[in-house]
Amino acid sequence: MAASAGPEIERLISLLAKLPGMGPRSARRAALALLKRREQLLVPLAASLTETAAKVVNCSICAAPDTRDPCSICSDTSRDNALICVVEEAGALWAMERSGAFRGKYHVLGGLLSALDGVGPEQLRIAELIGRVRGGEMGGGEAREVVLALPATVDGQTTAHYLAERLSAAGVEVTSLARGVPVGGELDWLDDGTIIQALRARRPA
Amino acid sequence: MAASAGPEIERLISLLAKLPGMGPRSARRAALALLKRREQLLVPLAASLTETAAKVVNCSICAAPDTRDPCSICSDTSRDNALICVVEEAGALWAMERSGAFRGKYHVLGGLLSALDGVGPEQLRIAELIGRVRGGEMGGGEAREVVLALPATVDGQTTAHYLAERLSAAGVEVTSLARGVPVGGELDWLDDGTIIQALRARRPA
Repeated sequence: MAASAGPEIERLISLLAKLPGMGPRSARRAALALLKRREQLLVPLAASLTETAAKVVNCSICAAPDTRDPCSICSDTSRDNALICVVEEAGALWAMERSGAFRGKYHVLGGLLSALDGVGPEQLRIAELIGRVRGGEMGGGEAREVVLALPATVDGQTTAHYLAERLSAAGVEVTSLARGVPVGGELDWLDDGTIIQALRARRPA
Repeated sequence: MAASAGPEIERLISLLAKLPGMGPRSARRAALALLKRREQLLVPLAASLTETAAKVVNCSICAAPDTRDPCSICSDTSRDNALICVVEEAGALWAMERSGAFRGKYHVLGGLLSALDGVGPEQLRIAELIGRVRGGEMGGGEAREVVLALPATVDGQTTAHYLAERLSAAGVEVTSLARGVPVGGELDWLDDGTIIQALRARRPA
């Protein structure tokens, strides 16, 4: 590609193209929209990203990104500490929260077990989850139930199976979202109604 | 939507959702990708946008965004000053440059005439174009030919017709890209081959 737009704009385009759902052409469109709407879009987005980079940290308890540590959910004393929902990523946590159906705490694994990608238990936040369930100094008391809200994919179900064994051994009730989640579906693309149904019909893992 | 992600992240998501091709869900995906790839993506994109906002200005001759004023194309003495290509937006200019088939200068109108949207000649950079063609202090000599590279839409063709009359009266040859541009097509989504063919077969407007 000719560097007709100058190195700064070319660099902006190549960074935008790395966002999910963006390609080289849509990234150029986005860059153009940013340049056309400098005060309404470019400057606020630059400020928002800078602020996010500076302020947002991963919660030391659940690993969800937030400006507070512990995060606003972990700090919320009105939520049930003994009920922990395990998710792959923060996107799934946000989807659960949008459904409004869950009033416990969360635990972000940071990925899924995958033989293909060489992801083992030590790469995920599993030891921290077991620690929370057993009631370490951070967890604030033992957990009564762990709800596995993992994707209905091969890796998701492998991870759920592994966690169910580990957690049962730690003496906690383990449930998982009901079949209501479409097979192969990713949690944060689901509609709220399906999430509510799946949560209500959760069953032993 | 529940403010589960915190106000900073919610604000980032709402700004990302304003980019073309993005919606609320893809913006959440993008925000999540940014938070997961903090050092590789979030921090560089924040820096790139901040740098773009600080450094990129619209060229005082052709109105293309660049870090230099006059822009790198207007400053390029190896390009033909007497040949001016008129485009709607910088995206079309970039598309022309990618084709590598044009060695003259550009003029960015900043929009199209539109009765429906109430855009008249005074809202576009038409007076500046006439000034350049006549050889004002900025233009550096009179223009020999103006190539209209406007979209093959109703507004694009209305604008082309208006410009052809005004420019012919100013005593310059006016051509437009050949029919090769698909009807209803936007210039910056075209493949380079079509742009090259359309430029080669340009004809009197």
